This record gives sequence, structure tokens and C-alpha cells, in this order.
Amino acid sequence: MGLGTQMLKVDVAIIGAGSAGMAAYRAAKRHTESVLLIEGAEYGTTCARVGCMPSKLLIAAADAAHVVSKSALFGVIPENVQVDARAVMARVMAERDRFVGFVNETVQSWPAADRLVGTASFLDSNTVAVGDATVRAKSFVIATGSSPAVPAGWREQLGDRLVVNDDVFSWQDLPHSVAVIGAGVIALELGQALKRLGVTVSIFARSGRIGPLTDPELQALSFSLFSEELDIHRGVGLPEVAAVGAGVDVSYGDARGIARVETFDTILVAAGREPNMRSLNISSAGLVLNASGSVSFDPFTGQVGRSNIFIAGDATADRQLLHEASDLGKIAGDNAARYPRIKRRPRRAPLSIAFTDPQIALCGSSHAELTGRGESFVVGRVSFADQGRSRVFARNKGALHLYADPVTGLLLGAEMIGPEAEHIAHMLAWSIQRGDTVQQMLNFPFYHPVVQEGLRTALRDAGRQLKIAPMDVETCIECLG
Amino acid sequence: MGLGTQMLKVDVAIIGAGSAGMAAYRAAKRHTESVLLIEGAEYGTTCARVGCMPSKLLIAAADAAHVVSKSALFGVIPENVQVDARAVMARVMAERDRFVGFVNETVQSWPAADRLVGTASFLDSNTVAVGDATVRAKSFVIATGSSPAVPAGWREQLGDRLVVNDDVFSWQDLPHSVAVIGAGVIALELGQALKRLGVTVSIFARSGRIGPLTDPELQALSFSLFSEELDIHRGVGLPEVAAVGAGVDVSYGDARGIARVETFDTILVAAGREPNMRSLNISSAGLVLNASGSVSFDPFTGQVGRSNIFIAGDATADRQLLHEASDLGKIAGDNAARYPRIKRRPRRAPLSIAFTDPQIALCGSSHAELTGRGESFVVGRVSFADQGRSRVFARNKGALHLYADPVTGLLLGAEMIGPEAEHIAHMLAWSIQRGDTVQQMLNFPFYHPVVQEGLRTALRDAGRQLKIAPMDVETCIECLG
Repeated sequence: MGLGTQMLKVDVAIIGAGSAGMAAYRAAKRHTESVLLIEGAEYGTTCARVGCMPSKLLIAAADAAHVVSKSALFGVIPENVQVDARAVMARVMAERDRFVGFVNETVQSWPAADRLVGTASFLDSNTVAVGDATVRAKSFVIATGSSPAVPAGWREQLGDRLVVNDDVFSWQDLPHSVAVIGAGVIALELGQALKRLGVTVSIFARSGRIGPLTDPELQALSFSLFSEELDIHRGVGLPEVAAVGAGVDVSYGDARGIARVETFDTILVAAGREPNMRSLNISSAGLVLNASGSVSFDPFTGQVGRSNIFIAGDATADRQLLHEASDLGKIAGDNAARYPRIKRRPRRAPLSIAFTDPQIALCGSSHAELTGRGESFVVGRVSFADQGRSRVFARNKGALHLYADPVTGLLLGAEMIGPEAEHIAHMLAWSIQRGDTVQQMLNFPFYHPVVQEGLRTALRDAGRQLKIAPMDVETCIECLG
Repeated sequence: MGLGTQMLKVDVAIIGAGSAGMAAYRAAKRHTESVLLIEGAEYGTTCARVGCMPSKLLIAAADAAHVVSKSALFGVIPENVQVDARAVMARVMAERDRFVGFVNETVQSWPAADRLVGTASFLDSNTVAVGDATVRAKSFVIATGSSPAVPAGWREQLGDRLVVNDDVFSWQDLPHSVAVIGAGVIALELGQALKRLGVTVSIFARSGRIGPLTDPELQALSFSLFSEELDIHRGVGLPEVAAVGAGVDVSYGDARGIARVETFDTILVAAGREPNMRSLNISSAGLVLNASGSVSFDPFTGQVGRSNIFIAGDATADRQLLHEASDLGKIAGDNAARYPRIKRRPRRAPLSIAFTDPQIALCGSSHAELTGRGESFVVGRVSFADQGRSRVFARNKGALHLYADPVTGLLLGAEMIGPEAEHIAHMLAWSIQRGDTVQQMLNFPFYHPVVQEGLRTALRDAGRQLKIAPMDVETCIECLG
């Protein structure tokens, strides 16, 4: 074959070599040797390159700065504290590059014949063009990931004054001031970290919501807690931006509707992520984009409609989280290789965490989901404002709400903002998946003094509201006290 | 009745108003109004006064000092850090007194007629003398707690140069140097905290063991990790001590058997705790002391032999932990009131934690218990030396070993030294109590990036060694990868 006419025929073609694509590749290879992984232009996964890992590296530095700033409370008194921004970013980048290196080594270790670099575009439901090559496959996995959504025209208008999270992790120094557009997980994680490292930060929340919690009481608490530290403008819609000199003017209406203009060095746009679907030309495969900018699929199989095309990871616009991308990647890759005799797989209990301070977590069904489904539920509450262990470490802020079935006591979901949320959320998600009741959980061990004793308070609060006594009242330690 | 002849008759008398006694009082009162709580001389529980809470307050200050000392690694550079020892101890005491205050308020809120202050001494199995009063009861709960064991003659020889943990929390300033006698949980927690607050600390371990782990590999790792920071002398037996000027000379044989003498300001004796049984005169009640210095009892009822006397808390010399004292207190108080128609109650899965850095935890059956019972088990291992999230926060030290039944995959126990051990230990203890298998646990959610991904590595390691495939291989997400 000459240039421009290369034709590859495979059983399974996987479009995208990120976290979902890599998982799909491994799962498909358990069924057939004939798997092609089509890699995009950028090496490394979103997680390792611009997501989970570098954001936690930046947060580790911000945490250190925060503890140092508070240490006098405990009697440990630094005379003066310098944040060496270049040193901060040097560690972020060195460690980030190390994580990316591991990912790249893994992909490079796979047979060269299984890999093709380029942008895939469907010609029909069994064929994609990748540069000069044509790939025919019995089935496909779309795992093209996502990119930050940037308001139309802003890039052109602001040039390099506008950054997205990807860019932050390439900074060699920190700017003086940043306007963060958005108030979701990425906006709060990065905005708070930058603030703690000495950057002047304002958060512009288009809606009234701050962070991912859906429980109205906890949503209000989120705003209150983050406002202690961050300058937050809520419900301002999309502000107007204008390049002025080396900076950016941000124009918005304040809480009383008065027009304001503030000037920043940099705009950080963190207002959601869009599936990377444009270049795929999916209409040629007989598929249509849905309202989320992706294609409708079955989360238990990864299958798009009844087609030979599967999808996984951020490209789905659903559960854009590493562990979900990895699971659905496995399921989709496995089913792409089994197609048309596919299998439905269970999914794990929902779990999402924001690594802010206090941390935020959602497990199982959210308050909004339960309410939306019209389910009745009892709410077990605890505030961490006076929780023993949290107070010992001066981290006594936040609250946890548990949602339980009023008849059976089954734990349905939970939302939390507070200390050690990442750990308590794991315990709760495991209990939800396992089908634990509130009463069973109260009979599990709680050490002392631990933040989990706050969880126990919320369980007891839920327990008091249940309409039936625990079945095992005769063998219940908790019931004796 | 005149003075010296007061006679009280009650259904249940509880000797000791600490954590176990308070729980016993509440449980007994659910059956009868006639309950007498005999309070010793000291107000407040061991936990609030000299145990769990003040030690965590001291550790909170030590943690702050440690983070400040390491923050340059992240690019945060404090200058001229001063540990203000008086400020450290002022916060410890103020917060400690607050916790003790809550406990005292609770006891004070109970009817005065239910309380008697004094030291109880048995006259027969239904009668105790308390000062000038005589108390007759149908049943008793012994909840007299424990005290630090101090080698014979040392107090006389060293006077106030010798302290126990109780004394540390009354310090208004920190000494220059401390020799810690013992290498158990209290010795390591306090020794490491004092060291991080600038005190010169040496640990003298009578045996070769450092900390509570029983797994030989993890025991060796414990020594290695704590030796990075602390001067530890292992297997020195009981050193000789002598008051010299304002200090103490400690004489011991070093690792090569060479005689050494070192001088310290203070000796902190943390070499175990003894049940407070002496003044009880239990032989008059027909009971005998066992080798642990307590009485033999049934952990599922609290009953001593077949008698009308129950026991709970540290006085048992068994599981000297707040949550266990509280549980057994409930069980013993409940049964004392039911006597002679008592009930057996379940106990929670064993869980113990040391709040050192790295933290130490044991869950379920320990390595020594499994080995002692001759059980066969597989060991799932993970090292935290290269665990992603742990490395991000520069806390990548330690290891976790899981013990699972080789046939069923049931999790039997775990030992760990490493980051977030308190949280991972709760998850494991809950899984052990619930009867989870390794394979079930692998199908629970693990977020990214979290230290729990290290737990998953250990679970996978155990899973590879199991002799059967998971039952649910067709519905297993984990098995697809």
C-alpha cells in the first residue's frame, strides 16, 4: 500500500488512550489480539496530566501554607513565611511529569502494531479515517475525553490572559491575581489553593450554587464556609471580560444588582468540561449528539443505542471521574470485544469527592436525586462545629447529612462538607453498596477520638427517626446505652 | 443513723465513675431506679483527663510543628520557627479542662442520691464499705480503671523527676530532655510528640518490640520508621536509674552489650497500665486476682465467674480502649440490673489505633492471634513507599498487611503502619465485622487519588493468592481489567 491508502482491519478499535481508553484496551485484549488503540495528539491521561494528580500536588503545597499560617494556634510560631512560588510549581511539575511518565511507559510497552497516532473521524459505522489511514473495525470504543468549556469569543479576546486548569500546571510562577469563572469542584479546588499560596482570588459563580452539594442546607453552609476565605460572587451569570493592558477587566452585577468592574492578571475558566466529540463526525456512524454534547448510552454496558459503538470516560459527559472512567472503560472494552453478545455489568456505589478544605463528598443518591424521584427519606444530621476530634485539630467546621429509608433504615445516600470527608465518604459508599442499615452501622466499631464519631451522631439522629425498632434489639450493643 | 453507721441498700452499685462506670450507670438505670454510683477521688474519666483527649491535643501541636518543619519541601518556607512551650501546654490544658468539664457536668446532672464519693472495699459479696458508709447491693459493677505501672522503688528514688502520662498534661512548660521507659502506644505517641516539640527524647524498650504490631515484617518496619526520628534503645530490659542533681542518670546495655549512662531531666514511665484493684479487697467477695492483676470475666456478659459481680473498662486489664470500656460498661451495667437472668451480647470487631506518625492500627485478628490459633491465612501486602496520593503529600511511608481465609477469601484481620491508618482501619474493621470477602471489597468504590488505593493493592495481592475464583466472576467489575 502506498501513502494515503493504508487500510487496517481489526476486531476492536479504541479511540483515545486516556484512562478509559487504556482500560478498554486491556479488557478487549483478553478476548482478541486484534485491538487497535488510536492515540490523540497529547500524551498522558487527563488525570495524570491536568486533573487529579497535579491538582492534588498544588493542594499539598496550599495545605502546607495553610497549616503554617495556623500553627501559632497550637503554640508553633514562625516569624515570617515566604511562599516560593517557583519552588511550589517546580515540585508540582516534577511530580506531575513523573506520574505522566508512568502512564506513557505503560502505553509504550504495548505492541507498536496495536497503536496508531492521529485523530479519528467516522466514515461509516465500521470505518474511521485516521490521518492518511483507514481503519475498519467490527466495534469501536469512543474514549476521547473532555476539554474545559470556554465561553465563545473569550479565547480570541483575552489571548494568554485566559487560562484553563490545564495551563495552571504549566505555570512556572504564580500570578498576582486570578478571577475564577465557575464554582464547581475544579474552580473551588484551584481557587482555594491559589488563594492559600498568596494569589488574590475572586470566584464568579454563574448560578447561586457553590460546589457540588445538592442538599439546600449544606449548599448554604458551603457558601458560608468558603466565603470565610474566598471572595465569592454568586449568581452573576457570565460576566463580561475585556483585555486591558496586561490584565483583564471583569464586569458583573453584585449582590444588590450594582454594576462592578474588577481587574485581574488572569482569568481561570473552570466552568465545566465538554466531551471531545467534534472531530469524530459521529453522524457518519449513524449517531446523534444529545443535549450533553455526547451520545446516549447504557451505563451498564457502555453501548451506544444498539450499535457496535461503545463509549466510556469523560466523553460520556457522565460521572467525569477517574474511577468511573476506568470502570466504564473496562466494561465498554470487554463488550466491544464480545459484540454482539454483550453483558450487563454492575456499577459501584456513586462516590465523588472535592479536595477542598473542608472537603466535600457525595455518596449514593444525592438529596436532589432522592427528591427528584419523589422518595421519602429521613435525614440524619451532624454538625462538626463542636465535634471532639475535629476541635482538637482545629478543623471543627462543616456538617454531614445521611439519607435513609424511613421504614427499613437502609442507607440511601449522604452529602457532607467537613473534615476527613474523603474517608467518611468511602465508609458510607461501601455501606450503601453493601446494603447496610443505619442500625447495623451503629453496631460497627467507632474508635475514640475520631471524626467518625460525628458520623455516629448522624446515624443516631437518623435512627431516632426510623419508624421501626432495629430487628436485632436483643443483640444490639448500641441499644443498651 | 449516726455518723459512721450510714447504711445504703440498692439494687446495683457501680464502683467507679469513669467511662465504663458512666456507661454501666446509664444501662442499669433503664431497669431500676435503685442504682448507686461510687465515685473515686479524681473527677473526670481517664480518657478526658489523662488519656485519649489530652494526648491528641499534644499531638495536634506536634503535628503542626512537624508540618512547619517539612513545608519547605512544598515551597512554603517559614523563618525562625519558635515552639512556645507554654503556649503549647496552655492550649492542651484549656481544651483538656473543657472536655473534663463536659464529663463532670454529666455526672453532676445525675441525682445526688445516686452518687457517693469514696473508696469502696468489699466486706462480702453483697456489701462494700465506702468511708463511713456501708453499701449493700444485689449486684456490683467494678469499673475502677487503671493506673500507670511504675517499677518498684523508682518513685521513692526519683521523686518529681519521674512522671507518668497523667503528669505530662499538667506541665506548664516542656523539659529539655526526657527518657521514655516503654515502647507501647502511649510511649510512642508521647515520645514522638515531645520530640517534635523540641524535647530531646530517648526511648528505652524493655523488649525488642516497638509499638503494638505483631506481624514480624511490620514490627521490623515500625522500628525502622520510628528510628528515623527517635533515639530508640531496644531490648535493654529495665534500665537502672539514679537521681543525680536535678536530673536522672539512666544506665543500660546498648545493642552490643556495652554499658552506657545517659542523663535526662525527666523520666517518663509508660510501661503499661495496671488495673486499680488493690483497695477493693476482692478476696472478701470470694474473688481472686489473676495473672493480669484483675479478675477473670466473660467479655460477652461482663460477669466475674458465676457471681453477682460484673467488671468493665480498664479494670479488666483487657482492651484498655475507650470504646471497649464504654461497650463493656453498658453490657455489665445492663446485666448487673438483670442479674441473675443475664444476657450475652455481641462485641464489635476489634480495632485499635496509635496516633503516631505514621499511624499504627490493628483490626480483627492480629497476626499473632491467627498464628497462635494455628489458622492458615494468606497475606495481602502493600507498601506505601510509592503509593500515589501518599507521595503527593510526602507521607509515603509504611505498609499494610491483610490476613484472609485462603479458601473463602473472608477478611480475618489486618495490621498497618502508614498514612491515614485510622481511616483505613475503620473500613477494615467494618468489613471484618460484616463478613466481607476480599473479592467483595475489590468491587467497592475506591476514589482517585486516595490512600485507599493502597488498600486496594493489598486486596488484589490477597486475591491473587486465594485458592478459588470469586463466586461472582460474571458480575465482577474488578475481574475485567
